[in-house]
Amino acid sequence: MAKRHYTYNDIHKTVQRLADKVVEFKPDVMVAIGGGGFIPARMLRGMLTARGMKVPIFAVSLELYDDETNTTRSSVTRLQWLGENSDSVSDVRGKRVLVVDEVDDTRTTLAYCVNELQKTNQPATMAVMVVHNKLKDKRHALSDDIPYFAENVEGDAWICYPWECDDIDEHDRLALQEKVIEKAILRLESSLQFNLGSRR
Amino acid sequence: MAKRHYTYNDIHKTVQRLADKVVEFKPDVMVAIGGGGFIPARMLRGMLTARGMKVPIFAVSLELYDDETNTTRSSVTRLQWLGENSDSVSDVRGKRVLVVDEVDDTRTTLAYCVNELQKTNQPATMAVMVVHNKLKDKRHALSDDIPYFAENVEGDAWICYPWECDDIDEHDRLALQEKVIEKAILRLESSLQFNLGSRR
Repeated sequence: MAKRHYTYNDIHKTVQRLADKVVEFKPDVMVAIGGGGFIPARMLRGMLTARGMKVPIFAVSLELYDDETNTTRSSVTRLQWLGENSDSVSDVRGKRVLVVDEVDDTRTTLAYCVNELQKTNQPATMAVMVVHNKLKDKRHALSDDIPYFAENVEGDAWICYPWECDDIDEHDRLALQEKVIEKAILRLESSLQFNLGSRR
Repeated sequence: MAKRHYTYNDIHKTVQRLADKVVEFKPDVMVAIGGGGFIPARMLRGMLTARGMKVPIFAVSLELYDDETNTTRSSVTRLQWLGENSDSVSDVRGKRVLVVDEVDDTRTTLAYCVNELQKTNQPATMAVMVVHNKLKDKRHALSDDIPYFAENVEGDAWICYPWECDDIDEHDRLALQEKVIEKAILRLESSLQFNLGSRR
């Protein structure tokens, strides 16, 4: 399992690429899944503002219990949800909601969040943006009519986010090193293919 | 008014320096003021985890109406608060709460948030962490018994955060340029003082 270090600027640029697609969905409001969704949601808000769209961020906080069963409901707990006492339910009701998180691994949290919003808060429509989607079998599914914006990564990638690191300079050095190695491998591969091709 | 560009890594390192002081407060939970508080809160959570403290993040979202009066209550609107329906009120009640935001300018939002938490959610005690505190006259005050963690900046600084920028490479170039110029000015100043001193 290869480690993948992403710098803050890597994440910023990925969210920027996704923002170009998100604008077409025309979200009224974001629902950031905390804590992972907080940084990408805040980045995205600035980018949407620059594109003339004012999209407020609401936050929900969920705790995922990985109980290795297929029952979504029993394995996710709400720590914070959109509250009745703050008019935020009505703020989401009938609106175009973009759910934001950092990574889609088993899809459990995302599926729970989308289903729960649908049931409790009745948005007009929903879409999902995650920074990274691991290409692997998912334990839960999202409805096909939900637009999904993400950068795909290998299913077994061991993702290291900058906000989880202790030494940011060392983290960035590792990120750069991985990029250099990846480039070298790609060059080696294409060179090998060229040589194999010319031998045939 | 001088522009000050901060890179993501600048912010990360500032939050890291503040984290060393925050641990002494021993927060049970963070309340991030959205959207500004989301990024520093998420950074801080990773750093506290690395120091053996599991501190969940709850989010509140406020809208500040700058009506140029001194009435806090009329100028801030709750967009999202800690909801009754999610047990998050009880999660804050009786706990040590760290309120997190990006910048303390007029102190209006911070004061509103701290007062409102005190009144509605009855934490045991509170502290405040902001990335930057502008050294200027504040329109609202925080109680003296509230520990306050921040990096101080000039009162008239025009702060440019990376999550507000369109071109992150250009943003980082400007940040570096400002650091180089600031260093040069400091050297020039100390050199002038040395020459003036030796002439006396």
